[in-house]
Amino acid sequence: MFEVILEQVMEKIPLVHCITNYVTVNDCANILLASGASPIMADDANEVEDITTICNVLAINIGTLNTRTIESMLLAGKKANQVSHPIVLDPVGAGASKLRTETTKRLMEEVHFSVIRGNISEIKTIAIGAGSTKGVDASSADKVTEDTLTEVIEFIKKLSKDVNSIIVVTGVIDIITDGEKTYLVRNGHSIMSKITGTGCMLTAMIAGFCGANPDNLLDATVTAVTMMGLCGELAFSRMIKNDAGTSSFRTYLIDEVSKMDAKRLKEGMKVESR
Amino acid sequence: MFEVILEQVMEKIPLVHCITNYVTVNDCANILLASGASPIMADDANEVEDITTICNVLAINIGTLNTRTIESMLLAGKKANQVSHPIVLDPVGAGASKLRTETTKRLMEEVHFSVIRGNISEIKTIAIGAGSTKGVDASSADKVTEDTLTEVIEFIKKLSKDVNSIIVVTGVIDIITDGEKTYLVRNGHSIMSKITGTGCMLTAMIAGFCGANPDNLLDATVTAVTMMGLCGELAFSRMIKNDAGTSSFRTYLIDEVSKMDAKRLKEGMKVESR
Amino acid sequence: MFEVILEQVMEKIPLVHCITNYVTVNDCANILLASGASPIMADDANEVEDITTICNVLAINIGTLNTRTIESMLLAGKKANQVSHPIVLDPVGAGASKLRTETTKRLMEEVHFSVIRGNISEIKTIAIGAGSTKGVDASSADKVTEDTLTEVIEFIKKLSKDVNSIIVVTGVIDIITDGEKTYLVRNGHSIMSKITGTGCMLTAMIAGFCGANPDNLLDATVTAVTMMGLCGELAFSRMIKNDAGTSSFRTYLIDEVSKMDAKRLKEGMKVESR
Repeated sequence: MFEVILEQVMEKIPLVHCITNYVTVNDCANILLASGASPIMADDANEVEDITTICNVLAINIGTLNTRTIESMLLAGKKANQVSHPIVLDPVGAGASKLRTETTKRLMEEVHFSVIRGNISEIKTIAIGAGSTKGVDASSADKVTEDTLTEVIEFIKKLSKDVNSIIVVTGVIDIITDGEKTYLVRNGHSIMSKITGTGCMLTAMIAGFCGANPDNLLDATVTAVTMMGLCGELAFSRMIKNDAGTSSFRTYLIDEVSKMDAKRLKEGMKVESR
Repeated sequence: MFEVILEQVMEKIPLVHCITNYVTVNDCANILLASGASPIMADDANEVEDITTICNVLAINIGTLNTRTIESMLLAGKKANQVSHPIVLDPVGAGASKLRTETTKRLMEEVHFSVIRGNISEIKTIAIGAGSTKGVDASSADKVTEDTLTEVIEFIKKLSKDVNSIIVVTGVIDIITDGEKTYLVRNGHSIMSKITGTGCMLTAMIAGFCGANPDNLLDATVTAVTMMGLCGELAFSRMIKNDAGTSSFRTYLIDEVSKMDAKRLKEGMKVESR
Repeated sequence: MFEVILEQVMEKIPLVHCITNYVTVNDCANILLASGASPIMADDANEVEDITTICNVLAINIGTLNTRTIESMLLAGKKANQVSHPIVLDPVGAGASKLRTETTKRLMEEVHFSVIRGNISEIKTIAIGAGSTKGVDASSADKVTEDTLTEVIEFIKKLSKDVNSIIVVTGVIDIITDGEKTYLVRNGHSIMSKITGTGCMLTAMIAGFCGANPDNLLDATVTAVTMMGLCGELAFSRMIKNDAGTSSFRTYLIDEVSKMDAKRLKEGMKVESR
């Protein structure tokens, strides 16, 4: 399936409207370009509806949210719903502050999201109003292991059905479900948590892939998750080979995305369907 | 001419006040430092007049503009005009939203710009109120080719005279004109559009070079455009040699700027005067 | 002492609340992760008190401050004082605009800071209301030399006692004092001023180290300053070896932080106690 997904990205060069945080915004723009998409960042209430209309997809990331940008997120989200564009939500730090938890809740109530991606604590916050988010990282109490995997899958399948969105929980094992079909991705490397923005970048890439494949959102999402994980593995190998450190890893990660193709992806993917 | 331009940058270390977007702001600061200038980013209405006064030049980039920063752009622009500092405008995405188009118009009405740099769609929006801007990239309908070159030159020469600014249109061929003299620069590489911020970085560099050469703005601008293009070529070669990708290219681009000197620039420049 | 400091960082993984500028925020997040800490950036008045409460330490950096974020800095600072978290202040550009000078003054009046780090012009502005800050760099008139060293030490010891904070003045020679004990650090390299954010990154790292060592703030601060300087030296060597430029230097700098340990630090540190 992923060959078609990648082909569509290359062919359509999807325009991705990002309302995102100022910490990792440059990485999000660069990984979108590396993957074949085209980013535009715009967050003023007076232009987000115009911008989202000319784009193919909207990505909303609540890291460094503020009163002004929350309104823009709502306006853009409603407009994207209206013009039937896919929307991807990244509830960064939901559970870490009342503002983030309530903003996530409000966004979920007023906007329909095609895909929601977070760590397990953030997704728990969405589902039950309370995870044990530790800052912007998942709490160790929430971590998904082989032992708790079946239980977590059931949990997010239910959430997926309840909110009618594809749910992506990233961690040691990434889980993607649309409530019916579920995929587990075992690509990736623990060093990805030693740089900022791997989650945000993945969210952006999911948006790009969904923008180019609006009729095939689940496959587009699984392809993006797998590609990100595989690029993390390849970038880690290059880091070790060059006796480099985490900042080089960040550069190599985006490099690998820019060099990825269907053949390399097929060789390296570790995807299981459940 | 470019030897004198570069010497002046090294000698004066121009202080560049940037009001710019949060996507590429770090790259703008780093390329300014790499080129010998000194950046200061400040966008609050309560300080932009103070800051611009102590600087040598002002750069205004409307990417991720908002209601608050638009007011700051106007205040800083008027103050820079008052103290006779050069001002460079980058109308990022003009034509992509009503807010960007109208803000550009308002800036043009209330502030005099020494240099305006954009892609052809953005410059058309300034000239005739409508380009076919596709997000933050030029529309393919607007692309400059050898066939349309003469026509485009006449078009921007007229704009240059009308608004009394040096106009820079960047693309496969870069065109710089002050309405009388016109330069074509054929340096650069298509990969420069696969990272975010090459346009923004060039605008910042033009500002730095103008800040150090206030009596020689056209030569300063041509030198910056040429240097950026040549550094793009050199960075691409290094990327290929290292079997790297687009994020390494971004690093190498700024590296090459930090290593550039008059001798290397002379050897690699592809500048034609018309 | 530094072995214990580093061990505590690794063990506690301090959560660092940063209210910082949008120019170097990504570098701050990445260097915190590289050093073993965990960053969270949050600047909305409606969440900063929540966020700072769940963190171990607060870092306030006034670069690109605005009316909205100034209020957030004050709220977060007061809350961190209330819950007895260490707070580190970076008065970026104090002296360059009335807004920055007055905001620094107001922060000093309403919040107690554990550590204040700046260049000599910024620290002079804090002490006597006026340095000769040139943009965000120290004025050459203020530069610390071997000749003026004794005088400068006395000056900042007095300031340290007056405001009851550890004072860090960074430059060719870094000076750290708590008013009683003073350390001089001669690590570092002049190229560190050719990239943006080395000061901001150091401030973030000091915060991380203090967050993990709240009972040993002076040693934590000296360790962070030394480590940053040594990593600058190592990164410069690698840059020269690879015939690279300043943007590679930036990558290598964070790389070296991610690879640093007590043994390497001990071998390279140039710290003198006065």
